[in-house]
Amino acid sequence: MPKVVDHDERRLHIVDAVTQIIIRDGFDRVTMREIATEAGYAHGAIQRYFPNKQSLLTAAFLKVFNDSHEQIERACDGVRGLDALSKMSELLLPFSTGEAERSKLVLTFWDRAAQDPEMFDIHHDNIVRRRQMIRTYLEQAREDGELRADADIENEVNRISTFNAGWQMLSVLVPEASGDDMLQASIDTMIDNLRA
Amino acid sequence: MPKVVDHDERRLHIVDAVTQIIIRDGFDRVTMREIATEAGYAHGAIQRYFPNKQSLLTAAFLKVFNDSHEQIERACDGVRGLDALSKMSELLLPFSTGEAERSKLVLTFWDRAAQDPEMFDIHHDNIVRRRQMIRTYLEQAREDGELRADADIENEVNRISTFNAGWQMLSVLVPEASGDDMLQASIDTMIDNLRA
Repeated sequence: MPKVVDHDERRLHIVDAVTQIIIRDGFDRVTMREIATEAGYAHGAIQRYFPNKQSLLTAAFLKVFNDSHEQIERACDGVRGLDALSKMSELLLPFSTGEAERSKLVLTFWDRAAQDPEMFDIHHDNIVRRRQMIRTYLEQAREDGELRADADIENEVNRISTFNAGWQMLSVLVPEASGDDMLQASIDTMIDNLRA
Repeated sequence: MPKVVDHDERRLHIVDAVTQIIIRDGFDRVTMREIATEAGYAHGAIQRYFPNKQSLLTAAFLKVFNDSHEQIERACDGVRGLDALSKMSELLLPFSTGEAERSKLVLTFWDRAAQDPEMFDIHHDNIVRRRQMIRTYLEQAREDGELRADADIENEVNRISTFNAGWQMLSVLVPEASGDDMLQASIDTMIDNLRA
């Protein structure tokens, strides 16, 4: 009987291995062959799922993004407004208790998305979804009377987007300023500044 | 008589050409040979100044960083505290009147600095200098009684760093949210939130 291969599981296994390798060695340094070896597959087996390094990076980014999106939805089930915004940033910011080192992968994806229209579109779809989540929480805060009266929602969507993005950069490139206490203090100030 | 070559000028000319090429075509897409051709030099002539692509990228980043640093120092001559912070962000954020497209080069450099210890150190020296500038303006704001009493200076240094960094990312990857009016509104809110 031919061996039954679970393609979804194999794909996922490859993506997880790739994520670790990119974080540890850097995307530019690794070859498809090294990724295959480390993940325990023949080079051709990986190519069957991912024709090139960019498709591997995209899959790794989407996994990180979707995992965090699901985490936020679970954590914010039944939570609204500013509490939900606070929980969201706690999950997105690179706390040491979470997936801090994934910020490196995010920086690599941003750069490639800036250079490649297809990767740009994939990133854009996802960040628009994230920004819609932020907008919803801000609208709830307004409905519930939590939000400062003079706050402009689109302006605050931008400010929270830059905050979440900026911490990805800072945690990788200024690690000494990115301790858990500093991350939490910055979230608390963000929420205080929004509160009526 | 042998031709006198102004090496500093030639170096600067190469760096300017490279910056434009990286922004237009993407760092990953261009080869040293294409950069040389576009800048009007023989391949060997470029290699004499820059042995590899990374050294070109580093020189381009340092030029962008130092130019903006000098612009800020000029603009903030005789200006203190929150006014200086506001002027600083106006110069760093990618307004269409400025060097908006340079954000793409910044994203490329961040990614490479995350992967290469030497580039990390170069970036780190510069961002520490930038953060010291922010800290000085915040301390002036405190001395002058402009700063909110409960503001923690290190926390605000981080928050302003993430703000400036986050807008580099947003302007490249969410351009429709990064109009001049949105940039200015976000700076005004940042300053309002700091004010006593």
